[in-house]
Amino acid sequence: MMTTMTISAIHAAYRSGELTPQQLLSDCLQQAQQDQRHVWISLLSAEQLNNYLKGLEGHSPDDLPLFGIPFAIKDNIDLADLPTTAACPDYSYQPPASAFVVQQLIAAGAIPLGKTNLDQFATGLVGVRSPYGACQNSLDPAYISGGSSSGSAVAVATGQVCFALGTDTAGSGRVPAAFNNILGLKGTKGRISCTGVVPACKSLDCVTIFAQTAADLAAVWPIAAQFDPQDPFAREALPAKAIPAAFRFGVPAKEQLKFFGDDAAEVLFWQSVQTLEALGGTAVTVNLEPFLQAARLLYEGPWVAERLAAIKDFFRADPGRCLPVIQTIVGGAESRSAVDAYEALYELQRLKRIADAELAKVDLIVTPTTGTIYKIEAVLDDQIRLNSNLGYYTNFMNLLDYSAIALPSGFRAGGEKQDLPFGITLFARAFQDEVLLALGDQWQRQLTLPLGASHQPLPVNTPEVVMPQANTIDVVVCGAHLSGLPLNGQLTERRAVLVQTTTTAKAYRMYALAGGPPYRPGLIRDEQAGQTIAVEVWRVPADHFGSFVAGIPAPLGIGKVQLADGDWVSGFICEPYGITGAEEITALGGWRHYLNRNTSPGICSVATEAGTSATP
Amino acid sequence: MMTTMTISAIHAAYRSGELTPQQLLSDCLQQAQQDQRHVWISLLSAEQLNNYLKGLEGHSPDDLPLFGIPFAIKDNIDLADLPTTAACPDYSYQPPASAFVVQQLIAAGAIPLGKTNLDQFATGLVGVRSPYGACQNSLDPAYISGGSSSGSAVAVATGQVCFALGTDTAGSGRVPAAFNNILGLKGTKGRISCTGVVPACKSLDCVTIFAQTAADLAAVWPIAAQFDPQDPFAREALPAKAIPAAFRFGVPAKEQLKFFGDDAAEVLFWQSVQTLEALGGTAVTVNLEPFLQAARLLYEGPWVAERLAAIKDFFRADPGRCLPVIQTIVGGAESRSAVDAYEALYELQRLKRIADAELAKVDLIVTPTTGTIYKIEAVLDDQIRLNSNLGYYTNFMNLLDYSAIALPSGFRAGGEKQDLPFGITLFARAFQDEVLLALGDQWQRQLTLPLGASHQPLPVNTPEVVMPQANTIDVVVCGAHLSGLPLNGQLTERRAVLVQTTTTAKAYRMYALAGGPPYRPGLIRDEQAGQTIAVEVWRVPADHFGSFVAGIPAPLGIGKVQLADGDWVSGFICEPYGITGAEEITALGGWRHYLNRNTSPGICSVATEAGTSATP
Repeated sequence: MMTTMTISAIHAAYRSGELTPQQLLSDCLQQAQQDQRHVWISLLSAEQLNNYLKGLEGHSPDDLPLFGIPFAIKDNIDLADLPTTAACPDYSYQPPASAFVVQQLIAAGAIPLGKTNLDQFATGLVGVRSPYGACQNSLDPAYISGGSSSGSAVAVATGQVCFALGTDTAGSGRVPAAFNNILGLKGTKGRISCTGVVPACKSLDCVTIFAQTAADLAAVWPIAAQFDPQDPFAREALPAKAIPAAFRFGVPAKEQLKFFGDDAAEVLFWQSVQTLEALGGTAVTVNLEPFLQAARLLYEGPWVAERLAAIKDFFRADPGRCLPVIQTIVGGAESRSAVDAYEALYELQRLKRIADAELAKVDLIVTPTTGTIYKIEAVLDDQIRLNSNLGYYTNFMNLLDYSAIALPSGFRAGGEKQDLPFGITLFARAFQDEVLLALGDQWQRQLTLPLGASHQPLPVNTPEVVMPQANTIDVVVCGAHLSGLPLNGQLTERRAVLVQTTTTAKAYRMYALAGGPPYRPGLIRDEQAGQTIAVEVWRVPADHFGSFVAGIPAPLGIGKVQLADGDWVSGFICEPYGITGAEEITALGGWRHYLNRNTSPGICSVATEAGTSATP
Repeated sequence: MMTTMTISAIHAAYRSGELTPQQLLSDCLQQAQQDQRHVWISLLSAEQLNNYLKGLEGHSPDDLPLFGIPFAIKDNIDLADLPTTAACPDYSYQPPASAFVVQQLIAAGAIPLGKTNLDQFATGLVGVRSPYGACQNSLDPAYISGGSSSGSAVAVATGQVCFALGTDTAGSGRVPAAFNNILGLKGTKGRISCTGVVPACKSLDCVTIFAQTAADLAAVWPIAAQFDPQDPFAREALPAKAIPAAFRFGVPAKEQLKFFGDDAAEVLFWQSVQTLEALGGTAVTVNLEPFLQAARLLYEGPWVAERLAAIKDFFRADPGRCLPVIQTIVGGAESRSAVDAYEALYELQRLKRIADAELAKVDLIVTPTTGTIYKIEAVLDDQIRLNSNLGYYTNFMNLLDYSAIALPSGFRAGGEKQDLPFGITLFARAFQDEVLLALGDQWQRQLTLPLGASHQPLPVNTPEVVMPQANTIDVVVCGAHLSGLPLNGQLTERRAVLVQTTTTAKAYRMYALAGGPPYRPGLIRDEQAGQTIAVEVWRVPADHFGSFVAGIPAPLGIGKVQLADGDWVSGFICEPYGITGAEEITALGGWRHYLNRNTSPGICSVATEAGTSATP
């Protein structure tokens, strides 16, 4: 049996021949069959598994990125082989096909193991609202697993699968990650198809991914997040906006944080802020109030009517087929009017304007994923209130259309919940998924926590997740575009930044061209007689570089200039005819020296001989 | 009195001294006071007008783009001086301030004249649903003006003001334009602030502009469409996407067009298609069905609950204060549930996916604005059905988030509705407002209809509306980037297009550089000994030009090249050191001749002497 269930570790074992997909999946199935935590609602038979394994023949990890990787599917997402129950046996149906996202994963080589337990109809954050049993926490079976994607999270944390699909409307893909010391990616709404998923709130639902490492989330994400034209709520990908290495992260004002008496969790949260600082971040206090107000709209407002709409005919025919707590919640939607729905939409739009402005002050915001965790027994005694506490930091996310990642953040060092895991969530505006994944990877390497419930460290060969970079072009400037000189504004107005002050290779001559102002230099390559010339390197957003180039008058242009370190970088060059009537100033070593010479008392101006002005 | 109420004509009269704002506004006020068509609900007093006129002191058309331009305001939009009634006297309130959009217009020099009649609570497309009287058509008082922005449209058509504000939820800013031979711009939702506007359906409402010319709409639009951070539904402007001069326009399949027996209108519609073809367009048949299905959602679906939400407390306290037809419509919303609202949202989202795909086949779609027009008497007899007929082509627009302009398209040449005006609507995806304005201007110049009800032609000095252009950069290529040569793909993959095949000015020498393949030319400017060299000019999207430049290896670069016509255009240049070891091929006149020479039998290859390869 694999002890480290990560994609790179499994693929290494496949490649070395020490393991085959048949062996791994057989082991996984056996472990799942023996599971005592109420993780599974149904499992594939050995024969069904074998059909998927046959699909791997002739392939390898080289051509299938998820070759032989076992995964679990929350039982509100269709898998063709098994019934979909949504944790309601009477609702159960046999799907005609697998969900779009499941099809993509299987096509990439992943092997489904079975369908996991959940809070009925994905309504809950606790994992106890299921006729298939209260799913138990992977680290302490007396505690809740979190929900609604309870089984998926515990299956990952206990190494029964490598990754798992969940769903997330109000926090269902994040809360169970926090409670089981794993990662949960709630990507941008619409990026992962919801075709073949039982809706909770159709306008808000996201399919999510659980894994033990950010690297695995990052490997699964592009396969899962393929555009599905059949899903009306699907959205085409937009590129993530790069964030600086010295990023700014928002931290809610202290009085807006709630830990519900869990002091050990609060300690871990403030340690998490320090960890983000250690990663290069600067903490900025933000006002969480507009986010919290939006959060309250979700369960107190009319969106619950979406849950009713999703199962309307089934529910109305006989509400008694649902758990009592679900009857209460979903049945409560019957009294909601269309006026309520539109008024709540207006209020949400109002709050989003304020929340977006708050988020715009920083690159991302950190919150606890939940303030605390509860025992199964406690939740069974007080289902609505404790569930609601768990959504304090999560309920607003999809209403406000943000991307989020839940990260493990350590174990409580004391108190009655000692040794239970705590988690934080990083969130950012929509389409920042890749940024959050890369930061999650940095976070995981910084914290060096054991993975899930495994007591195993992050394997040393785990691939790094690349942070999205701004699409920029570096340009070498040597004259009036240098910092503080007259044409520098052409760079700064394009949001270019100075990245290096250096010299050219010892292979250039510099001329002060005829004409001006502005006076301009000509840089002429000469490997024999050239010298080093002082230059600056500016980093220009690629989409604005073209207009910068187009604005440069003859005889100058943009070609390639060799720097002192030997690199060739885009930079100012000069046509041969341009040095007609120009003064050679190579010996001065750079344009600033030339300007200083000319402004010194007693020295008169340049370019006394008029050159051929070829400027358009 | 001005006979031609356009901004440029009025400003010309102000500049020449033949007219002052005081005189014009006084004339306008007098004409409005004498109006018999039920255009106005309230007018400013001479004293109130004078306060606005005082604000013009020290200004002129040079610094205020709407200096002294009289305009009307639909009476569901606040003006600080007058009560807002929404055509319901019992609802009337005194606004604390003018609406955001009104403030912007006044700040730009425009002078409000008064508040115009409307279908009560902007609920209707007819203009007869008002206790202030059924607004009469400007060309035939027996006919409806169209609504709900009835008074605003008639005020413009009859020259009582130069432009007017309306609102548009289901067609209220377009239908009255069609019926009164004027233009109506229903810009992209969220571009004009709704702060200070009585909502109809808050998630759909747009403030609109009526004018007699596209030039006037284009002058008012950027002032009206300023971003309002206080309006939660406001949207920041996105640049319009340029459309080609040879644009493609969608025409609904013939069987999807409805004219309700109005054959003369149908003739005008097909003439309109020909007019668009005369403007350079190519007609493409599109399937209007998904649009029409979305349209039916508006009045048959739960959005009517937004109308109830807008006036909930007032309405519920005593529905009898509303007109009977409004009671029926708005009261019908009470039975709509939140489930209805969300289910309709899902259906709309589904239809939008299909409709967007249909629209993506073309640059814009043309439809009749309405299929026919009715007498006031007929509408009073059959309020709901005839109103519904008028929304056949308009109801889907805001649900599907499109931009639209209503254009006058001629007068019926026969039938019982002879001489009454007919109009078309051009619509495109969101944020195409400036494209529609420019096309509307071309349309108006092509058709040469009289303006409004004035019998005046478009004044000859009316400024043209500039069509948004794609942001591109032209680049001169002379070597391997020429059509069909090995590096041409670097241009085509950036969606560059060939725009000119020409030569340089007689001032260049060409060299075949050492190295390769690909073999590359060096173009060296030499005003004395140079010749003309064959080149191509390619047009590259500006945001992709930077990466093209950055990919060019030394010793080449992009500078400025002079063409045969004397123009200086971005193009390939060569550093002085680059011609070391190169063969001069100026006499061949261009790179293709050089390639042909070398591939001819018996001629062996170029560049036998290896040059200094300085390529990064």
